[in-house]
Amino acid sequence: MSTKDREDEPPAWRHLSQEKAGDFNLFEVHRERVESPRDGSVMTFEVVRSADGVTALAITPDGSAVLVQQYRTPLRRVELELPGGILEEGEDPVEAGLRELREETGFTAHRARHLGVITLNPSWQTTRVHLVICESAARTEDLDLDEGEDTRVRTVALTEIDRMIVSGELNNAVALGAFAMLRAHRQIS
Amino acid sequence: MSTKDREDEPPAWRHLSQEKAGDFNLFEVHRERVESPRDGSVMTFEVVRSADGVTALAITPDGSAVLVQQYRTPLRRVELELPGGILEEGEDPVEAGLRELREETGFTAHRARHLGVITLNPSWQTTRVHLVICESAARTEDLDLDEGEDTRVRTVALTEIDRMIVSGELNNAVALGAFAMLRAHRQIS
Repeated sequence: MSTKDREDEPPAWRHLSQEKAGDFNLFEVHRERVESPRDGSVMTFEVVRSADGVTALAITPDGSAVLVQQYRTPLRRVELELPGGILEEGEDPVEAGLRELREETGFTAHRARHLGVITLNPSWQTTRVHLVICESAARTEDLDLDEGEDTRVRTVALTEIDRMIVSGELNNAVALGAFAMLRAHRQIS
Repeated sequence: MSTKDREDEPPAWRHLSQEKAGDFNLFEVHRERVESPRDGSVMTFEVVRSADGVTALAITPDGSAVLVQQYRTPLRRVELELPGGILEEGEDPVEAGLRELREETGFTAHRARHLGVITLNPSWQTTRVHLVICESAARTEDLDLDEGEDTRVRTVALTEIDRMIVSGELNNAVALGAFAMLRAHRQIS
């Protein structure tokens, strides 16, 4: 069987109804009843709905990326990530990315642009993360941490990123996605 | 201020207590009380706990990756992703990756290995995804879809992946992370 006959796009499902099943600080859980176009069967999915996030990939003039280390309660471990946070309703992603960069790392940048949107887990959550690339970034400010934030800033040469991915030191989906997106843009454009 | 003086790793927080705050099919929500080592303040985080996932990055002999398209209820849209699913308790990630690959795409592979683990969202969820690379993959079986699955298989040349990332056609965090990890391993080792 060739793959050719499956290259048509699968049809959308019909959304029949939804109800809120849980209300939490950063997300809600909704039960959604949907009907399969394949056989008409009705299924219920539990979906985590959250605001979108924003992540800043800041590059210094000497070709280093700006990363943050912080203790993460869910994983009970210190994690290495890109600076980021929640995109407020109606907020411009580039401004939000620059804000999170400044607050969490003290770095600012004159040139920043929206590189794309990453979907985190289409299987059972809505969360999307906007990626903002900030070039010619420099440390000009002190940190301005929210309550409960305790970060360490690390600048890492872009030429070291592959080694840190292979060692497992850098294994966060959004950070890996951001570096993949940066590299793709530099290759293509 | 140099970044040097912040390169020490931030200390772990103390976990004081936890309680289940929500129980759903694929995840639970827990409230965790933790104490900051920075100032002793006590905070409560709501954490989504789920089983780990597994994703298969299968490469054909002619250098194409095996992707799946399917309608995703949370995003209300057809998404392009790598085949994957939930890692059952105690299950070997490589076997699970090969199973998801076979069921969702009909592809099998004789050579498969565990490439690494990706953390999805350390901010408020535990979810981690095991990445399994399957080489010399070939279409040998029919699909074996779970109820509610309706996928289309697409094989895409690895040389096309960057273009699809730039166009936004491929924007899933785990898929981007998998391609970043594959490329890093091929560069380094």
